[in-house]
Amino acid sequence: MQHFDNDYMEGMHPLILERLAATNMQKSVGYGCDEICESARNRIREACDAPNAEVHFLVGGTQTNATVIRAMLRPYEGVIAADTGHIALHEAGAIEASGHKVLPIPHCNGKISADAVDNYIAAFRNDEAWDHMVWPGMVYISHPTEYGTIYTLAELEALSAVCHKWEIPLFVDGARLGYGLAAEGADITLRDLARLCDVFYIGGTKVGAMFGEAVVIPKAGLIPHFFTTIKQSGALLAKGRMLGIQFDVLFTDGLYLRIAQNAIDQAIRLREAMIKRGYEVFIPTPTNQLFFALTAEELEHLRAITTFSEWEHLPNGKTVIRLATSWATRSEDIDFLIAQL
Amino acid sequence: MQHFDNDYMEGMHPLILERLAATNMQKSVGYGCDEICESARNRIREACDAPNAEVHFLVGGTQTNATVIRAMLRPYEGVIAADTGHIALHEAGAIEASGHKVLPIPHCNGKISADAVDNYIAAFRNDEAWDHMVWPGMVYISHPTEYGTIYTLAELEALSAVCHKWEIPLFVDGARLGYGLAAEGADITLRDLARLCDVFYIGGTKVGAMFGEAVVIPKAGLIPHFFTTIKQSGALLAKGRMLGIQFDVLFTDGLYLRIAQNAIDQAIRLREAMIKRGYEVFIPTPTNQLFFALTAEELEHLRAITTFSEWEHLPNGKTVIRLATSWATRSEDIDFLIAQL
Amino acid sequence: MQHFDNDYMEGMHPLILERLAATNMQKSVGYGCDEICESARNRIREACDAPNAEVHFLVGGTQTNATVIRAMLRPYEGVIAADTGHIALHEAGAIEASGHKVLPIPHCNGKISADAVDNYIAAFRNDEAWDHMVWPGMVYISHPTEYGTIYTLAELEALSAVCHKWEIPLFVDGARLGYGLAAEGADITLRDLARLCDVFYIGGTKVGAMFGEAVVIPKAGLIPHFFTTIKQSGALLAKGRMLGIQFDVLFTDGLYLRIAQNAIDQAIRLREAMIKRGYEVFIPTPTNQLFFALTAEELEHLRAITTFSEWEHLPNGKTVIRLATSWATRSEDIDFLIAQL
Amino acid sequence: MQHFDNDYMEGMHPLILERLAATNMQKSVGYGCDEICESARNRIREACDAPNAEVHFLVGGTQTNATVIRAMLRPYEGVIAADTGHIALHEAGAIEASGHKVLPIPHCNGKISADAVDNYIAAFRNDEAWDHMVWPGMVYISHPTEYGTIYTLAELEALSAVCHKWEIPLFVDGARLGYGLAAEGADITLRDLARLCDVFYIGGTKVGAMFGEAVVIPKAGLIPHFFTTIKQSGALLAKGRMLGIQFDVLFTDGLYLRIAQNAIDQAIRLREAMIKRGYEVFIPTPTNQLFFALTAEELEHLRAITTFSEWEHLPNGKTVIRLATSWATRSEDIDFLIAQL
Repeated sequence: MQHFDNDYMEGMHPLILERLAATNMQKSVGYGCDEICESARNRIREACDAPNAEVHFLVGGTQTNATVIRAMLRPYEGVIAADTGHIALHEAGAIEASGHKVLPIPHCNGKISADAVDNYIAAFRNDEAWDHMVWPGMVYISHPTEYGTIYTLAELEALSAVCHKWEIPLFVDGARLGYGLAAEGADITLRDLARLCDVFYIGGTKVGAMFGEAVVIPKAGLIPHFFTTIKQSGALLAKGRMLGIQFDVLFTDGLYLRIAQNAIDQAIRLREAMIKRGYEVFIPTPTNQLFFALTAEELEHLRAITTFSEWEHLPNGKTVIRLATSWATRSEDIDFLIAQL
Repeated sequence: MQHFDNDYMEGMHPLILERLAATNMQKSVGYGCDEICESARNRIREACDAPNAEVHFLVGGTQTNATVIRAMLRPYEGVIAADTGHIALHEAGAIEASGHKVLPIPHCNGKISADAVDNYIAAFRNDEAWDHMVWPGMVYISHPTEYGTIYTLAELEALSAVCHKWEIPLFVDGARLGYGLAAEGADITLRDLARLCDVFYIGGTKVGAMFGEAVVIPKAGLIPHFFTTIKQSGALLAKGRMLGIQFDVLFTDGLYLRIAQNAIDQAIRLREAMIKRGYEVFIPTPTNQLFFALTAEELEHLRAITTFSEWEHLPNGKTVIRLATSWATRSEDIDFLIAQL
Repeated sequence: MQHFDNDYMEGMHPLILERLAATNMQKSVGYGCDEICESARNRIREACDAPNAEVHFLVGGTQTNATVIRAMLRPYEGVIAADTGHIALHEAGAIEASGHKVLPIPHCNGKISADAVDNYIAAFRNDEAWDHMVWPGMVYISHPTEYGTIYTLAELEALSAVCHKWEIPLFVDGARLGYGLAAEGADITLRDLARLCDVFYIGGTKVGAMFGEAVVIPKAGLIPHFFTTIKQSGALLAKGRMLGIQFDVLFTDGLYLRIAQNAIDQAIRLREAMIKRGYEVFIPTPTNQLFFALTAEELEHLRAITTFSEWEHLPNGKTVIRLATSWATRSEDIDFLIAQL
Repeated sequence: MQHFDNDYMEGMHPLILERLAATNMQKSVGYGCDEICESARNRIREACDAPNAEVHFLVGGTQTNATVIRAMLRPYEGVIAADTGHIALHEAGAIEASGHKVLPIPHCNGKISADAVDNYIAAFRNDEAWDHMVWPGMVYISHPTEYGTIYTLAELEALSAVCHKWEIPLFVDGARLGYGLAAEGADITLRDLARLCDVFYIGGTKVGAMFGEAVVIPKAGLIPHFFTTIKQSGALLAKGRMLGIQFDVLFTDGLYLRIAQNAIDQAIRLREAMIKRGYEVFIPTPTNQLFFALTAEELEHLRAITTFSEWEHLPNGKTVIRLATSWATRSEDIDFLIAQL
């Protein structure tokens, strides 16, 4: 039996484990103020070509989204997101718990366009009753999206321009950022993100780490006292160096991108094989998440050989499923699965 | 120039003003613990045939919605509402500010059906990821709705049954309740509300009072320490008797319903006249709010003789407008407007 | 039986009642955007010699405190207050409900000194762990205080200077402001408040109005989108002109100060008479609140002739009580009470 | 140079590292629903003799405090704590950020007594204005306290009895629980905690783990939908098995208590040596935290040989410092430090 449920099923990249072992009995100060964290921050700044960026390490994605958003918004503001965005659906109301409304706009394969955002804000500003409504104070996108799709550089530049036009920040949830950077046909780099976003994060949990998300604020000081807000949000790890170790390893010798590339390569192999076998692609994706619409028969067959996520039941009787590869997926696992299809 | 912008343009019913004058220099204890408030509570209990009901007086509608909802929901819960519901759109995020998500479902002329609620909750409970999502913990409806429509008794009974089936409370926003009770063809009474809802309120602000909403909790004790939560929400009026006076007058000799009836009668006259003149009804409503879709020419003409609200611009070039009558609308105002149409 | 429980037992000044009657059936737009509100704002600007000030009308004191504080603080910030401050004790946790800690410092007869604030902030900034603690982001004082005492101009100037030194705003709760301005020996004026505070409010509820507090922001724009935050806080009155009417009357021909003066004059008469009769002053106050420490016998005697608040039981067996006069207290009530002492 | 700053300076117990390595490339489901987590839960249930207990794994202490408290309190409620409690001071306002006031009562060496709690609640309930104040809805204690002291079984039983008397839950912050269980003269066991508390947690971060706190709810179901509230609080670890592994190892063959015992043994050796050298004990403690009051000379001397925390400057010119041992402290480190004293 194979397992392609999601991209956080294994532990951590072996080099991280090695580094954990090598440093285990060292003593260091807490809360990310140690030297390994500082090294990791510098490597990230370098990778982003953003020498003055602030870099903060948090533990998980929902936590990071909620902490960044509540730190940036004022009480009267909400955050624009795709209606399929993680913060809109699958964070158990974490954004609202901090007092802010998620302002959903319809997605297109998980993405929102600069035009859609522009129209939304323009309509809001023209509404007679705008001051009785939640002010759109931020744009949130995930890259890759929850549907495995990615933004093009042109699309990101357009979103960034719209945000600047309306003077609100652009925040990119990069929980799966590695897979976005390594995706087929991807033209967005870390430097582009640092240039075009106000805040973004580099996901570790799903790309080689045990846990951890690195928040990058290209213009240091944008969020005053962010450290304290992180602490208040319960998002400050006491043994902060555990986060430093992971990101220091991931950003040494290009490991982060290299292991992300593996997930993409394996996903492409699996996708091509499934298409050849006649499986219907539901949403074409260039990343590590593959969405197929299966007949009842196909579903039954696939269930016998691997685990995966069931996403949605279509009116035509088919079931949308997701298979996810990861940094840890082995070629032989894909071979084996393909052989059994 | 006439004014039909909304139903809160005038002050208060003259009998309330009289009572204010008559009691003005009396001294009483604060916070609604005085005798006039107690008398008003008893009159409301009687009108609702709910002798054990708790009755609390708050100042305004948004305040009441936010206070009731935060008092009833637990952190993991959200409130189902029509996507056009006041709490979903026009309360500046008051519900989210208290930590809870509004869970919007598509409206039908401002209403939501028992089936729609049932399907929404059933789908939620069947979702693999339900425990990563906001638990539907309450149903909110407004009666009349923001579109001037009303629920039938059968519809309310069905909604109440669905709420009981899923063991969540039903909350009715009655900011315009008088106009719903007095509406053409209305078959819901205060007794029905007390029998079918867990909490509802009787709107004063829009139906004869200066301000004030009377929250009715038919089963006393449902919300523990609600008084303190009202205080914490900034919703406790120091000179509480001002609220008691208003509701005591409104619930003496059937004044509340009688003045609501005037708004309905005048609305019907106006509607019929406008239909005769060829104006297109946008949503047929039996209450004091009338919605028409006007051509540019009609719009210009109407603007010259009265003020009103502009609601929406239709793709066909027409503009949806709302005219609202109230308890204070005079027959001669309607005559005058009709004459000029 | 007399009643000196508090200063919000009567209705409203007769001139307000007159104006309500005179304007009752006029139609006006809602939410404080009408002409009467604008007139009231201008009168307040003039009285404060602050022609550019923003003026907002809210309904009650707890509501105003909570709304202003949440509008001004960022998530990592709390508000310094006397440990006897209204927000620290008697608002049912309204400030915390908006996510912010009240940082109490020991009071001296209800007041806090510039030095105490300075020391508190200096100690905080020197604490090794300051970034794991709540940042003091604002100073709140009440004037008069909950103990009926008042700040001198020199004290207020010192507090203002400390706030500027640490770059945090000074907020003055003026729920009883009239009685502070009119107090014996008072040397603070509205102009001083406008010059020295970042935000303050002029209490109506306890000084002649039915309800209502006028928030003054001397430097307009200090709180962006405050209108929307007021709406979100449930603090925006639909029939906003009711607030405008009250403040327009109170700020016509010096009525506000004149009626406040009556409360002071009557309080002085009562105080002197009680001292003559041998009652022990607990805290000497120059305003409308009088605090005495009574023996059991005195307490019993006083209970037979008037109502009042019981404040505290002293270790020496005496009971601290409060008698409050108001704008509405009549000379003959005081005569009568004195006669019976 | 030695380091005794705190008890979270090293990584993790070597057996945990081994287990991480052994299981690293296994695939498992997320969010703590895997078999290792289930095994860890069972070991904890057994150690607590609480076969029906719910056990949840969270990442850190502040996060756990905030999540448990917000999950249990209703809006009108606050939590009683020592004024030195972690939640009162060093969590950056995390409790207030969730809307609840911390109600501080004076500590005695970091502890609060059942009598103090009883008196506080009795006074609250007798206060005329109780319903304008925050309802004491929970008692929070830390064991060991922030001052390294511990409760006796009799004291815990008395606190538990007071909580039952007033019908509010008792919550024990066990961030350093191991050191409390293993302390000199300790008579509280895990079974006692499970018997006497409504919720408590077993700290991993400071006692052998990389991170992680195990929340125990002896009566399952006490907090409905706690899983979703954990998710909403950003406290749900995606790769939940990392927490399961750590607690599974710590609760195998009594490891947790055994390594805690080491910290105690080393602390006693250090304490006795320092007392012999004439250092003044500031607070006598039976756990791994030692507090001394040093002269300027002693301070300078100690700074040359080890790092530690500076706690407080006393009026007599002495400085209070804290030295903390841990599960990882080696005998030779203590030998070395003692030799240099």
